[in-house]
Amino acid sequence: MDTPVNRDLPPALIDELRAIVGADGVVADDSSVEALTRTCLPFRTLPSAVVFPRDVGQVQAIMLAAARADIPVWPVSTGKNWGYGEKAAVYEAGITMMLERMKRIEHVDEQLGYAVIEPGVTYQQLNDHLKQTGSRLWADCSGSTQHASVIGNALDKGRGLTPMADHFGCLCGMDVVLADGSLLETGGGPAGNNHVRHTYKWGVGPYQDGLFVQSNLGIVVKSGVWLMPAPERFDFAAFEYKAGPERLGAFIDDLQSLVMSRAVRAHPHLANDFAMMCILAQYPHELLGGRRHLSEDAAARWRREHGVARWTFGCGLYGSREEVRYQKRMIRKVLGRYGMVQFIGAAVRDDLLGRFVRWAAPIVNRMLGKSPEFTDVMLPAINLFRGIPTDDFARQAYFKSFKEKPKVDIDPARDGCGFVWIGPVVPFTSAHVMKALALTKAIFDRHEFDFFVEVIVESPRSVIVLVGVFFERNDAADAARAKAWYEEARLAFIEAGYPPYRATTMSQPHALDANPPSKALLAALKHAVDPNNLIAPGRYGTPQR
Amino acid sequence: MDTPVNRDLPPALIDELRAIVGADGVVADDSSVEALTRTCLPFRTLPSAVVFPRDVGQVQAIMLAAARADIPVWPVSTGKNWGYGEKAAVYEAGITMMLERMKRIEHVDEQLGYAVIEPGVTYQQLNDHLKQTGSRLWADCSGSTQHASVIGNALDKGRGLTPMADHFGCLCGMDVVLADGSLLETGGGPAGNNHVRHTYKWGVGPYQDGLFVQSNLGIVVKSGVWLMPAPERFDFAAFEYKAGPERLGAFIDDLQSLVMSRAVRAHPHLANDFAMMCILAQYPHELLGGRRHLSEDAAARWRREHGVARWTFGCGLYGSREEVRYQKRMIRKVLGRYGMVQFIGAAVRDDLLGRFVRWAAPIVNRMLGKSPEFTDVMLPAINLFRGIPTDDFARQAYFKSFKEKPKVDIDPARDGCGFVWIGPVVPFTSAHVMKALALTKAIFDRHEFDFFVEVIVESPRSVIVLVGVFFERNDAADAARAKAWYEEARLAFIEAGYPPYRATTMSQPHALDANPPSKALLAALKHAVDPNNLIAPGRYGTPQR
Repeated sequence: MDTPVNRDLPPALIDELRAIVGADGVVADDSSVEALTRTCLPFRTLPSAVVFPRDVGQVQAIMLAAARADIPVWPVSTGKNWGYGEKAAVYEAGITMMLERMKRIEHVDEQLGYAVIEPGVTYQQLNDHLKQTGSRLWADCSGSTQHASVIGNALDKGRGLTPMADHFGCLCGMDVVLADGSLLETGGGPAGNNHVRHTYKWGVGPYQDGLFVQSNLGIVVKSGVWLMPAPERFDFAAFEYKAGPERLGAFIDDLQSLVMSRAVRAHPHLANDFAMMCILAQYPHELLGGRRHLSEDAAARWRREHGVARWTFGCGLYGSREEVRYQKRMIRKVLGRYGMVQFIGAAVRDDLLGRFVRWAAPIVNRMLGKSPEFTDVMLPAINLFRGIPTDDFARQAYFKSFKEKPKVDIDPARDGCGFVWIGPVVPFTSAHVMKALALTKAIFDRHEFDFFVEVIVESPRSVIVLVGVFFERNDAADAARAKAWYEEARLAFIEAGYPPYRATTMSQPHALDANPPSKALLAALKHAVDPNNLIAPGRYGTPQR
Repeated sequence: MDTPVNRDLPPALIDELRAIVGADGVVADDSSVEALTRTCLPFRTLPSAVVFPRDVGQVQAIMLAAARADIPVWPVSTGKNWGYGEKAAVYEAGITMMLERMKRIEHVDEQLGYAVIEPGVTYQQLNDHLKQTGSRLWADCSGSTQHASVIGNALDKGRGLTPMADHFGCLCGMDVVLADGSLLETGGGPAGNNHVRHTYKWGVGPYQDGLFVQSNLGIVVKSGVWLMPAPERFDFAAFEYKAGPERLGAFIDDLQSLVMSRAVRAHPHLANDFAMMCILAQYPHELLGGRRHLSEDAAARWRREHGVARWTFGCGLYGSREEVRYQKRMIRKVLGRYGMVQFIGAAVRDDLLGRFVRWAAPIVNRMLGKSPEFTDVMLPAINLFRGIPTDDFARQAYFKSFKEKPKVDIDPARDGCGFVWIGPVVPFTSAHVMKALALTKAIFDRHEFDFFVEVIVESPRSVIVLVGVFFERNDAADAARAKAWYEEARLAFIEAGYPPYRATTMSQPHALDANPPSKALLAALKHAVDPNNLIAPGRYGTPQR
């Protein structure tokens, strides 16, 4: 048995933290800390305290206080990375530093297309700000919750759906607090006076922003984020794969050619039937028949009941009228070989056509044999491709353990939902994608979980095969099953040469184990900038304390 | 006076280097070393020896030998970065390691659009390889020489002209020899078996490729390079600015809007009259009238003689037929307000229309009052935007000190041409660009140099205001004048908040002086991975020995 960890902080440190951030900025009593730092994972650690700085000076002062007491600090932006690790560290005790109160939108540059924001700024807040100020700019968002941090998601290499889906790629020019409390402006240009720090990516000398992604080399307290101007035209393609499984490989290669030729500029998620059902329905416990996951027959019955195809995706179209015409021509021509394509972007328009499409959608869906929930998710799905965030899809977290998905105040970690994600990066070719899908399916079957997969278009060159399982978090045996599934999948993906694009706190210390020179290099860099291993020890392959 | 440096290497080390790379791979006699490492800069250092490894193992062995002897190694790919530093270090003595014999093209992936190459591979070699193998892929190239290294240019953040102009941004997945001789595969995925190392940019954990750009943290011995598929349609817009100087600001903003809305996907260089004349003519010494640079009147006379506009650029158009139609519509509409636009992409076509355009071009040019040289550079200029490299523009280096530009075997460093470049990065707005131009012009005037400027479209958010001077390299007074110009310009740009995108070997040790935290961070990282400061000490802001 593990020795119980002494989680108590020195009382003098608690006093010091209170003096820095105010009494309401430190949470140290056990039950509040527990409630604040729940996770959806089959893995749990508890910090000693959670501290909420309001500005850069407070972040610096906290680091100096923690250094004096030799207590590690696990920084999170808003900790809404549900199913990846949330607000809990890879170790017990220590301080979790929540940046959610640092919510300043410092500047939006309309002509050059960027915002400068703090890590507490959420997708919803940034979107509201742009709409309220009459900006022509769109901010990409992730498909999870509207309350996630723009910077936090980007720093974990999270993804969106629009042409600006590469969230880390859209960060440019950071303020970073280092372990010694000093403040770095990245880019190497003149400190305090670099006019291009948010417009030119690579800076002077080695590229510095890249040091701070999936990283514990510093705490990002501000960053530039590139935004896209609203296009002249927008449309939306809804696609359902109707061909047989033997043509899926050819479909993957054709989809890749659409992305490479920029007929598809968005970053769609190709969802399998089960992934779609999580969004549309509650889990059909009644179809299990004593099994732990649905049989092929039961899954097929459930799928038909709701009119769900084997594979489905939505995809935004962007550009001038000529460009959108090209995109429609190619999408219709190429994807039409494999199933049904509908262009329904007009549904979000504020005119007669928009009203007509919204009126007709439920009728058309009924005729196509689809359940009414299809219509419910249509507008939020289209809007995601315009960078408008929503909690509509995060609600799926509740679909298995709860009788009904809540309408508002979604927080699956707080509410005891159990799920975990892993997303291996795979070359965008039929051979690799089919191999990765087969490999994954076998692991789901072996652990008796329902096969949930979304093939995310990362670029013309890679996809992310995002898979996940839902489990009963308060049932130790089910949690152990989920953990075993995760560990087998993780090792299998690495063994096959498809490294996961993000790591949960369950596996972060081992994230670079398969590449010893890479791990050694990172350990040397970490030791150079944080010799006492104060910031987030163990994050992404770095040494634990 | 400086103490003369003892440049002799220990004889045992020379023997060891010969044992590693063979006798023909080590050049150590003074006159050969001098001839090999000439530079165009008003600054000269001499290494003790130049060594030419043929493979990774030899690079590793050289590093171990250099470490034992405690002799620094200055690695260069092919050293064709004329006017930036070429093959000479920032210090005297030591070893220059030339990677030009590492010329393997390991793999080209047609579907995913990338090549894996060694640092000795030149633009010409890669282009020839693609053409000979019938590839549909285009490799971007820089506008300087066809014999430059693809990887070397990218690692110095060099730029091209096509949509893939961001050369460093197109590198993905490197093999790097570290100072201790170990070999790193970047990306953090499984070493030896990572299927996405050349397709997925950010890898696992902190982004590692970024450590090795404008850097001495390691020696890149192989890299993936992203390529673009030949577009369905290609065209080329030739533009001449005919409006008055009072409308230049409005023009800059309109050009920015074209780039932001992706009507311009290429990365054109907006060249001023003098920059165009360097390409088209020899320097008109006869117009100087005893001055050191041309008067406004003399420059105007020379400009009219050749039919050159105040500002000129060429720009490739790329995409499907609808996309190119959109680009032509917008370019004609927006740029038509400021001057003359001609679409002459057909000139490179291998059909009747192509032959007609090539036949008509000299006639049209004559009618427009242009000198015959306009016609000579038309095809090479268009082809640059299709990634086809040429030495036609590098010839301008000879235009001032030589009676005639050579037709073949261009090597301005070897041949004694004197010039130096500096390119501050400036936000892509009229206010910033006009300010940077005025600032720069005053410095040229103060040092009595002719104003050479190209405004390079870096992205929708930044331009590079590339400026340079030509001088008599063998005239100490003229070289001192060029050096003074460079130093004043460099400090003025940094002071104004426009950091230069590249540094010459004259200024590299001071590249981060204006950002002390950034400089301190880099020094700590350097010390961590190369504690004895063996690889290129002083490069880009790192400590000198």
